[in-house]
Amino acid sequence: MLIENDTFKNISGGICAPVGFLASGVHCGIRKNKKKKDLALIFSEVSCSAASVYTLNKVKGAPIHVTKEHLKDGKAQGIICNSGKANTCNADGVEIAEKMCALAGKATNLSADDFIVASTGVIGQSLPITPFVDGVPQAVSLLGHNEQACLDAANAIMTTDTKVKQLALEFVIGGKICHVGAIGKGSGMIHPNMATMLIFITTDVAISPDCLQQALSTATHTTFNQISVDGDTSTNDMVSVLANGMAENPLIDAQNDDYTVFFTALHAICLEMSRCIAGDGEGATKLLECKVSGAPSDEIALAVSKSVISSSLLKAAMFACDANWGRILCAIGYAPGDFSIDQVCVTIKSTAGEVLVCENAAHVPYSEELATKVLSQPEVLLAVSMGAGEGVGSAWGCDLTYDYVKINADYRS
Amino acid sequence: MLIENDTFKNISGGICAPVGFLASGVHCGIRKNKKKKDLALIFSEVSCSAASVYTLNKVKGAPIHVTKEHLKDGKAQGIICNSGKANTCNADGVEIAEKMCALAGKATNLSADDFIVASTGVIGQSLPITPFVDGVPQAVSLLGHNEQACLDAANAIMTTDTKVKQLALEFVIGGKICHVGAIGKGSGMIHPNMATMLIFITTDVAISPDCLQQALSTATHTTFNQISVDGDTSTNDMVSVLANGMAENPLIDAQNDDYTVFFTALHAICLEMSRCIAGDGEGATKLLECKVSGAPSDEIALAVSKSVISSSLLKAAMFACDANWGRILCAIGYAPGDFSIDQVCVTIKSTAGEVLVCENAAHVPYSEELATKVLSQPEVLLAVSMGAGEGVGSAWGCDLTYDYVKINADYRS
Repeated sequence: MLIENDTFKNISGGICAPVGFLASGVHCGIRKNKKKKDLALIFSEVSCSAASVYTLNKVKGAPIHVTKEHLKDGKAQGIICNSGKANTCNADGVEIAEKMCALAGKATNLSADDFIVASTGVIGQSLPITPFVDGVPQAVSLLGHNEQACLDAANAIMTTDTKVKQLALEFVIGGKICHVGAIGKGSGMIHPNMATMLIFITTDVAISPDCLQQALSTATHTTFNQISVDGDTSTNDMVSVLANGMAENPLIDAQNDDYTVFFTALHAICLEMSRCIAGDGEGATKLLECKVSGAPSDEIALAVSKSVISSSLLKAAMFACDANWGRILCAIGYAPGDFSIDQVCVTIKSTAGEVLVCENAAHVPYSEELATKVLSQPEVLLAVSMGAGEGVGSAWGCDLTYDYVKINADYRS
Repeated sequence: MLIENDTFKNISGGICAPVGFLASGVHCGIRKNKKKKDLALIFSEVSCSAASVYTLNKVKGAPIHVTKEHLKDGKAQGIICNSGKANTCNADGVEIAEKMCALAGKATNLSADDFIVASTGVIGQSLPITPFVDGVPQAVSLLGHNEQACLDAANAIMTTDTKVKQLALEFVIGGKICHVGAIGKGSGMIHPNMATMLIFITTDVAISPDCLQQALSTATHTTFNQISVDGDTSTNDMVSVLANGMAENPLIDAQNDDYTVFFTALHAICLEMSRCIAGDGEGATKLLECKVSGAPSDEIALAVSKSVISSSLLKAAMFACDANWGRILCAIGYAPGDFSIDQVCVTIKSTAGEVLVCENAAHVPYSEELATKVLSQPEVLLAVSMGAGEGVGSAWGCDLTYDYVKINADYRS
């Protein structure tokens, strides 16, 4: 759970918590299973400042190309997203993604380019437009500004996720109550730089497109880009944020104090969503956090923490609740960057206690029994101190389990 | 199996095939299981030119530091290696590794620095010297120049390997019959740049230390550095070669025609050993090769092939014999380097046939039935043509299975 502080408090409602945002989720027929919703719509009553960050994979899903085009003016009013097929590596992909937006525009009396479009699922299977012809008007007719509407949309974008991911925060800017909400999906193919992950964020804050993009890009660097489930960077990842200004705060168009308040809330929601996605990685039984301190720089701390959290060997050991700290040292050792490992200390922590397992890069005596107990909890922190400076950084991941293999061996069937 | 050609032919005998090399393997007591040999010795009747390549992990096992010191003069006469404990991240690691060499020197009337030393196993558990006190003289007394002696040594260095890895080739330089032989161990923690992999190569070719190092480094670039089992780069990896000159060919001290013949044989043995290690990756049911052609450069072809072979998602799909080519495209897309994916075609091949599954980065119709049959074989080739130049490169790996998780969750117990 998010830790409340002086700046913000947790609220319910997800993407429908901000004023003026509506959502819906329906089964339109892309998936065979009629009980699984496969089309989500997010809509603002008024036009929004919009910003996105995208996968760095050279293979990009068609929806990303279309969304980039539509966001050239920094404005959008809605998001359309399907699950089941990724609309990637198809000859007609861009055409289909454009048609999805055109259908959404037609059903809402807007233009196609007022929409952000996203798809998630299997790559390389043609995405038929037919299910959207009836599905989009149905989704528009069901748009609601309530918790159930948010839940429906959050469900519709899920693939192998086991838990719905939605969050919302309330805070104050210029005397006005403001909100930010998010839904997300993750699970497999989750690795730095926007892996198969879709995050849609709504806010009623008034902020310029440039400041919104700046805030999103900065927040992403230390949150979504620091999670790894399996080292695979997907072709379709995207984090998008819509800001409709309906909180009526003074427009944020510079990096002033109001920007800082908004950024703090946005960063908090990105951080918590990152933890949700890492902890619900395919087959995961626990959330792992690696927190690095005392690094020569923040960048090295980020790289080291990400290297640890990405190690298959470590992840398998964590599944077995085995304090095999040699694998942590090993993963630190192949992280990029110029640093020494001589002063590295590692402490494992959870609600069951904490155990120092390595001091100055060497073995220290510890209780294996307590270590196993610490590692048996659903959230485990691997605290690494490097004794080489002031740099800090964290990364999030999960254990590697039989079920990861099972899920990914069977995915298409 | 190695394909014989005009330059060389396969022979038996492994590291004992070259003239003047002896080997042995014993159980000295590092491991609890008395049936598992844990100490290997390789010895030449005369002093050798010696060369090594090492892990790039910043955490390096103590034996690597000691071996580097001992090879400063480019000479060595033997190799001592234990399995069970890696002698890494121990305060007394260098001292223990030196003592191992001193014991080997004492038992053979040589100096400690005539020995290369290596260890493999768990990191961070102190390696006691006691088992070596009796074990080393015993190993020396059992040194033999025969197939069983090579087999004993090959067995003694194994950890989770399921198959013994030994090879030998015969070829002619300057009218003299020459040999090169190798033993190796791999299995987990196998990834580019010398992952938990120990390879010991012997040859009776007369070659200068500089030329030997040049040949080894060049051969490693396109062989051992192109295999991946799980993306983890170990702390203890090492490939060492001893050349004792007993074939009596004219000394190779420049990159002449004789050098080329030797290099061809060395490269072939490195390539085949790479395939053996990839195919016997932890839990693997099949060997995967990704062969990239038509890349803008060889370096990009190497990077792309390695990216494909390293993808956990692809590896899980291969376990299920699922031609999920989207995952191949995805992994190509996040390979480093500046290239286009628009012309990428992918064909899967094995003894059961071949199937084009992707053309110009898009879906083409194919028989799923045949694809499954092709992928059900023990060796599968993923042929990627990029249509963007003349660059070629290959990488080798294996599928990701339940057993990988099982092996690594249980490793220390």
